[in-house]
Amino acid sequence: MNKRLLFAGLAFALGAGFAQSAMSQVKPEILVKQRQAAMTLQGKYFGPLAGMAQGKVPYNADTVAMNAAFLDALSRMPWDGFAPASKDATVKTAALPAIWSEAAKFKEAEENFQRAVQDLVKVSRGGDEAAQKAAIGAVGKTCGGCHQNFREKQQ
Amino acid sequence: MNKRLLFAGLAFALGAGFAQSAMSQVKPEILVKQRQAAMTLQGKYFGPLAGMAQGKVPYNADTVAMNAAFLDALSRMPWDGFAPASKDATVKTAALPAIWSEAAKFKEAEENFQRAVQDLVKVSRGGDEAAQKAAIGAVGKTCGGCHQNFREKQQ
Repeated sequence: MNKRLLFAGLAFALGAGFAQSAMSQVKPEILVKQRQAAMTLQGKYFGPLAGMAQGKVPYNADTVAMNAAFLDALSRMPWDGFAPASKDATVKTAALPAIWSEAAKFKEAEENFQRAVQDLVKVSRGGDEAAQKAAIGAVGKTCGGCHQNFREKQQ
Repeated sequence: MNKRLLFAGLAFALGAGFAQSAMSQVKPEILVKQRQAAMTLQGKYFGPLAGMAQGKVPYNADTVAMNAAFLDALSRMPWDGFAPASKDATVKTAALPAIWSEAAKFKEAEENFQRAVQDLVKVSRGGDEAAQKAAIGAVGKTCGGCHQNFREKQQ
């Protein structure tokens, strides 16, 4: 099985100029559940990398490459879950109203995160440990940059 | 920004022979939450494709390509969340004991799903609508093949 070939489908799909499908018919509660799922998995794959950058977890180049690749996909997934309709959800969410009242700023924070993840993907292929740890730190800052303004303070 | 180039990081990471990192230090409840998150997102991206294959949603080749690419990543994410330690989780889960008592069969069901997703990724690049719908149906069967034996019946 040629995994290299198969995973190239991601590059192809993006090259095709995919437009996010309209989520307006999805229930608000489902939108919240789906965006929270994407955040949960971002945490799963970013956590070990943050640990490496902080020297708490042994550095492993293969894990950096794989988790960066997963984050590349995951960094594209939460955003349509913040559709205005999701404001009506009757489930618990830490999303703050600023997401919608300051939409341009939220979009900017989203793009900063995606750009930082893409930078990490690039250096994750180079094998330069210091550059990878710097890129991991940069991703972490963009997580915080969004949570700072758009997520309720966590306990 | 060259999206084709950047997403190729996924192919690279798999080529590097990544081994799943040990999840033994992650709390059982987190394991459950993470695997459920992966399933939630598989539903998000497979749902519209199933709708297309059944003629309930208009066919869109770009959506097939993008969602197949996302599913390629997501199909690799749930499995370490079924580590034996996750049996001790005190949260709600539909996972059945057969996952651990029939581990080889569960593994086979997992591989059937991943293989079907990879077949879908391949045909999603070809633009043959009939072949894509057939591949979508094949993926759906492998979802059911696992849920049938390893997930509590849903209401």
